[in-house]
Amino acid sequence: MTKAAQPTFGAIVEEGDVGTPLILVCEHASNTIPAAWGDLGLSAEARVAHIAWDPGALDLARGMARALGACLVHAPVSRLVYDLNRSPDHPGAMPVRSEVFDIPGNAGLQAPARLARTRAVYQAFHDDLHGVVAGRLAVGVVPVMVTVHSFTPVWHGTQRQVEFGVIHDADPDLALGIVAAAAGSGLRVALNQPYAAADGVTHTLRLHAGPYGLRNAMLEVRNDLIATPDAAATMALRIAPMIARAMALTPAQVA
Amino acid sequence: MTKAAQPTFGAIVEEGDVGTPLILVCEHASNTIPAAWGDLGLSAEARVAHIAWDPGALDLARGMARALGACLVHAPVSRLVYDLNRSPDHPGAMPVRSEVFDIPGNAGLQAPARLARTRAVYQAFHDDLHGVVAGRLAVGVVPVMVTVHSFTPVWHGTQRQVEFGVIHDADPDLALGIVAAAAGSGLRVALNQPYAAADGVTHTLRLHAGPYGLRNAMLEVRNDLIATPDAAATMALRIAPMIARAMALTPAQVA
Repeated sequence: MTKAAQPTFGAIVEEGDVGTPLILVCEHASNTIPAAWGDLGLSAEARVAHIAWDPGALDLARGMARALGACLVHAPVSRLVYDLNRSPDHPGAMPVRSEVFDIPGNAGLQAPARLARTRAVYQAFHDDLHGVVAGRLAVGVVPVMVTVHSFTPVWHGTQRQVEFGVIHDADPDLALGIVAAAAGSGLRVALNQPYAAADGVTHTLRLHAGPYGLRNAMLEVRNDLIATPDAAATMALRIAPMIARAMALTPAQVA
Repeated sequence: MTKAAQPTFGAIVEEGDVGTPLILVCEHASNTIPAAWGDLGLSAEARVAHIAWDPGALDLARGMARALGACLVHAPVSRLVYDLNRSPDHPGAMPVRSEVFDIPGNAGLQAPARLARTRAVYQAFHDDLHGVVAGRLAVGVVPVMVTVHSFTPVWHGTQRQVEFGVIHDADPDLALGIVAAAAGSGLRVALNQPYAAADGVTHTLRLHAGPYGLRNAMLEVRNDLIATPDAAATMALRIAPMIARAMALTPAQVA
């Protein structure tokens, strides 16, 4: 199956304080399309749109990582090449259409092309992230995992009112704690909005937090609120204390 | 944390028929202790005992793989260096005692040594196994995962009557199907014996089958029944049709 040394695109890991349990993950940090995949047949407009990445999410996640001393793990490749938050058998992993955009370079992908992208992007990233988790467990640190995303304020022509979504998978504990900590922040916060686990958006959490029983949650911030580096840095300082407070709560305190 | 190029001990993958969904996993296939870890302070007797590996399990799994055209993934290193079916934070991952044997080379292991073993053995094996799973999903094959183990007939002086244990994690479907298919085989079969998920023995299944919703089960065969290559080959031909029958059942048929 393998050709000669195909380049791989693993995770970029920015370590935090020594022994920090918090791992922030930003799967949609980049809109970069490596040369091997050309421009996927997309216009320049589409390549900077929210379909290619989560605008502002990396700045937000980095600001939170600095405020909390957390480890930050982020992706170097556009979600249109491979959406790291989707299983290889999910139609959205290498989508042929996203919101109002067709992605011509993903139309009619055959097995060898799907396998090559899975190996080069999905497997490389998640094996690196697994190493970050396993390495902590080996030295007695039990990680907490929070994925950081942004969403578009207008989706198929409809304005979204929620500003800060907190999404959980099977274990709601940490998400409930974050929502509780967000009360009085002035942000319009909502649990399991604008997406929920049933939409298949918790793959990274299932892959890495589920098997080890780690506390986990997914954050979604509306991207008009983090459209500049300054705005993202300010938002990071609003959200970081919520995460710290939720991490300090026991499940009984959340309930 | 890393020194210069530490050797790693990834999985040995024996591919089966093209497009086969069944992946057989043998985490305790080998009693080899690589030179880096000396003899762990063990006697020659202890190094060939069931604490170091699952005697007969690799022969059994290989016979089943051939009969079923399955992919076989097995480990090259003794469970006493690292037990691949345990999370890095589990006391049994690098055990200081196993049944009646002390393992001197595992006493008082500090963080750097634990991390090095986790990277070299655990992470290398499971990333390889993840690649086998993800590669199948990428090309439209939904895997079924069965781990293959053996157990000692006498444990802490007590004789075990069960001959063939079938263990499930969260999803009992495949295990129930195998138990049903074993009826009338003449083997003393039991569900969740001699171990169960609550004993922490389903780590590999949780890591690889759980996140993708794959059907899965763990097999335990009493090692006195597979003590020679011939005996293991014969047992493989008894058990293989049970797996095939269980895979052909739908969950509704099992219930």
